[in-house]
Amino acid sequence: MAIKVHGSVISTAAKRVFACLNEKGLEYEFVPVNMAAGEHKKEPFISLNPFGQVPALEDGDLKLFESRAITQYIAHTYADKGNQLVIYDTKKMAIVSVWMEVEAHQFDPAASKLTWELCLKPMFGMVTDEAVVEEYEGKLSKVLDVYEARLAQSKYLGGDCFTLADLHHLPNMKYLMATKAKALFDCRPHVSAWCADIMTRPAWLKVLEMK
Amino acid sequence: MAIKVHGSVISTAAKRVFACLNEKGLEYEFVPVNMAAGEHKKEPFISLNPFGQVPALEDGDLKLFESRAITQYIAHTYADKGNQLVIYDTKKMAIVSVWMEVEAHQFDPAASKLTWELCLKPMFGMVTDEAVVEEYEGKLSKVLDVYEARLAQSKYLGGDCFTLADLHHLPNMKYLMATKAKALFDCRPHVSAWCADIMTRPAWLKVLEMK
Repeated sequence: MAIKVHGSVISTAAKRVFACLNEKGLEYEFVPVNMAAGEHKKEPFISLNPFGQVPALEDGDLKLFESRAITQYIAHTYADKGNQLVIYDTKKMAIVSVWMEVEAHQFDPAASKLTWELCLKPMFGMVTDEAVVEEYEGKLSKVLDVYEARLAQSKYLGGDCFTLADLHHLPNMKYLMATKAKALFDCRPHVSAWCADIMTRPAWLKVLEMK
Repeated sequence: MAIKVHGSVISTAAKRVFACLNEKGLEYEFVPVNMAAGEHKKEPFISLNPFGQVPALEDGDLKLFESRAITQYIAHTYADKGNQLVIYDTKKMAIVSVWMEVEAHQFDPAASKLTWELCLKPMFGMVTDEAVVEEYEGKLSKVLDVYEARLAQSKYLGGDCFTLADLHHLPNMKYLMATKAKALFDCRPHVSAWCADIMTRPAWLKVLEMK
């Protein structure tokens, strides 16, 4: 049975899963969820994710939600397909896990807020709150200072190889690169080189072609 | 070389790591970080975690931060010690991962805010913001509605066995059980039974004895 991803091409969390599936070279069926019509808060979607958030994945009889749990499942289950996204050495993988947690708890809270204010609110005809933008640009700057130091020592966040720790950043990074927050990435040379590298991966470029 | 945990007994994130080490029956050295004196924002701690947050772990030459990355490292590296906290079946582990992400992205944002307002602010002589408490009690209630449905079907969040998906909840749960937010747990029978079960595990009771 084919893998199905229920989601929306607008969703950063869904894009994370698409990117992961593309890295592994896996075929999948995309099942659009019309969020404007509130389909993510109703049946049948709510049976896939009781929190009513996209994406959800079906792989045979297995049903999963939470994008980062889905990417980990894909990376481990399809280890022999496509590009490796995790490392099979306990200590090295622990470092990857640290930076996956950093993305989730340090980068994402600031980046998601800026994506909402600078990209999604204008897209939905809402007004950007400049005070919130300023506050969260300050928070993101502090996070990127740590990234700059890390990436001066390590080609990727988790180590020498591209892993889920990098991949998870792509959706918010892509949105922010079309806004004034791009300057926060551009002014840090190692961060900037890392962004240029991971944003041009074929698996990610394929996500950007989705309609 | 012994495992070292740099942290504070007040920190929910540090308590998560202590609980995990106790479940595995591992000896460790606790290195207190005086947060009141700002030690977590200075060297030498900042070299262990550039984000300046406790805890940090040293295991031989390996240095880790982010509590949930640390617990996963311990659970996998010391798989043959103490109680199993992860599952070695890809599909079953994927379900555990989903609920670990739920803790991190649904439960923790609401529970941590309430812990701060109802427990830590009074401890530090600050004034609780009742409007914030009301808002986040509403958010936590919605999360616990999903937990109630889940725990009606499954003894633990991740499946039949206690795993990291349950363990990660303990520190905030413990703080909130001493506040009016306890009612949110008590009024949901399956959630209440789950709390009573996991809060009386010997490994957790040992954390509560720490000074």
